[in-house]
Amino acid sequence: MQIAISLYGFGNVGREFVRLVDRKMPYLKSRHGIEPRVFSIVTRRGGIRAESGIDWPVLVNLANAGTLSEQEGFVGGDPEDLDSWLLPEESGYVRVLVDATWSDLVTGEPGLSRLKEAARRGFHLVTLNKAPLVADFDGMVQAARDARVRLKFSGATAAGLPTIDTVRVSLAGAEVHSIEGVLNSTTNYILTAMSDNALPYEEALRRSRALGLAETDPERDVSGIDTACKILVLANAAMGARKRLSDVKVTGITEVTPRQIAYWAVQGRTLRLVGRAVRTGDDVSIEVKPTPVPYRDFLAQVTGDGKGVRFTTDMFGELTIVGGAGGPKAAASSALKDLVNLARAIDGDQGLIP
Amino acid sequence: MQIAISLYGFGNVGREFVRLVDRKMPYLKSRHGIEPRVFSIVTRRGGIRAESGIDWPVLVNLANAGTLSEQEGFVGGDPEDLDSWLLPEESGYVRVLVDATWSDLVTGEPGLSRLKEAARRGFHLVTLNKAPLVADFDGMVQAARDARVRLKFSGATAAGLPTIDTVRVSLAGAEVHSIEGVLNSTTNYILTAMSDNALPYEEALRRSRALGLAETDPERDVSGIDTACKILVLANAAMGARKRLSDVKVTGITEVTPRQIAYWAVQGRTLRLVGRAVRTGDDVSIEVKPTPVPYRDFLAQVTGDGKGVRFTTDMFGELTIVGGAGGPKAAASSALKDLVNLARAIDGDQGLIP
Repeated sequence: MQIAISLYGFGNVGREFVRLVDRKMPYLKSRHGIEPRVFSIVTRRGGIRAESGIDWPVLVNLANAGTLSEQEGFVGGDPEDLDSWLLPEESGYVRVLVDATWSDLVTGEPGLSRLKEAARRGFHLVTLNKAPLVADFDGMVQAARDARVRLKFSGATAAGLPTIDTVRVSLAGAEVHSIEGVLNSTTNYILTAMSDNALPYEEALRRSRALGLAETDPERDVSGIDTACKILVLANAAMGARKRLSDVKVTGITEVTPRQIAYWAVQGRTLRLVGRAVRTGDDVSIEVKPTPVPYRDFLAQVTGDGKGVRFTTDMFGELTIVGGAGGPKAAASSALKDLVNLARAIDGDQGLIP
Repeated sequence: MQIAISLYGFGNVGREFVRLVDRKMPYLKSRHGIEPRVFSIVTRRGGIRAESGIDWPVLVNLANAGTLSEQEGFVGGDPEDLDSWLLPEESGYVRVLVDATWSDLVTGEPGLSRLKEAARRGFHLVTLNKAPLVADFDGMVQAARDARVRLKFSGATAAGLPTIDTVRVSLAGAEVHSIEGVLNSTTNYILTAMSDNALPYEEALRRSRALGLAETDPERDVSGIDTACKILVLANAAMGARKRLSDVKVTGITEVTPRQIAYWAVQGRTLRLVGRAVRTGDDVSIEVKPTPVPYRDFLAQVTGDGKGVRFTTDMFGELTIVGGAGGPKAAASSALKDLVNLARAIDGDQGLIP
């Protein structure tokens, strides 16, 4: 199956996605019969496109080069003028928009309108961009349903750590009572570094930046908002919570002190930034806060840039998953995973291997 | 979607499956739009059937009653005479055979021929019966492909612990380098009891029987064969190993002594029966043996009747999953999960929630 991709966003994740797909091409073809081609890469001020797809060596060069707007073939233009950037239906390809941009968390824009419109045009959606899901989860699901396209968002819900797939497939048929997890690599790295090396917050943050974990502006991470977005989308998707970001009680890690950490260490506990969604009756309460967890608890064993999640369900009891370290590679891998699952579903998945 | 089920086997797992589906019926209908009906229950000497499906209260009574052959409505007959027990294609139903019987591990019979023939007749397959997959994995997959039916086997590969779903969906696109896990509840309970309570093997085995974990004949468990079957099917399905049971080096736990356990405890290790499949070049080596693991390792933290598995992959690094305790409930839950995923796939899964 030939898949035509329009890639929105060409930062670390978008570039890693291009490199990853290029590297995995022989495997994707031999194992899954999938041949992805990129038809356009779109950034804030314009992009690059090719009517018959951009050659992979060219793509990889672009991924390894500097600013896209300085590369050969770059065309200025409004990224939201979708006629300019999206392959029309007549192409006959299975078309997918991979969104690796950032949007406003309150309005979801400009991603929300872009994704809904792309769905209307028959594009399947793989979004690493959390904001449209955070701002209007039900609307996004409805837009995809109405257009009979697939909506995939592993990369928006802890990426390399399988969360939404786990609920949807591995726990199919079960009712989820609670979800709790360490869902943000940057803050976990900082808390682990403060604890293991007795560092003050600022120094731990500096080190996470030096490692390329924290963004230049790590505000979304350290404020707990990134974790809140992930647990919110999971609760809405897996528990039918129908909540908004403003319903989530969020405490970040900026006030955590070495003194607090030392205090809890004496009590046999270590601090983790935990996102938690718990069903009580018909309601679901969602909270994010630094939480002292016993050393023996699995959450304490999620160290460095690791992630972990625990689901409690009626049919399967507790299920704990640890892994899927953060960063652009995990994000790109989760987008590729979504692409494979999407292609299989479109192809009339036989439920077999592969 | 109405789903017509023929249930082969009415032991602990088959009965639990009936109770579970009955209990979950409102949820299955409201959340997934699925309405399962059981048309026949087939055991060694015959079974019970109804042209328009057996009423659920009747089914639950049967599940809670004694031997099936002593119940009202029981009809003697050869279980492998499929004309007698399987709804014909003209019924128009989506038909599923749920196999909760035991078969011979070398020949796969009588399950292997039964499942292949049911596939040929257009039945989708949910098998908790490992033997057909162990004896002829490629043949089973091919039979399902040829008949364009779905083949699901979560219940044959560690049931409540998601293994095959994880590889297939959560790790889609990734190449699996290794799989290792504690995949058998009975042996893990015995080893944990020997370790925590300093019990000799025979006494720990007796307790696992008293808890209903070990079968009357626990030979498949304690010999390591059950673990070998699971890791073999996983390696064949997820790593393209193309191995047979005779290729697996198997050491069980019958020779484990309290003295050995005490020796390893001093070294900071605890014994687990570990199944392991590792890719080396083009080959995959598969082994099952009691393995001393460091206390900090996740495998050491799988205690009692727990299970756990770790995948190593190219795209996602290490992924560890712990949970899904054993026993008939987990097995029945995994069969219901397979049923839901199968129904969604048949329905032209939109990749949405639900």
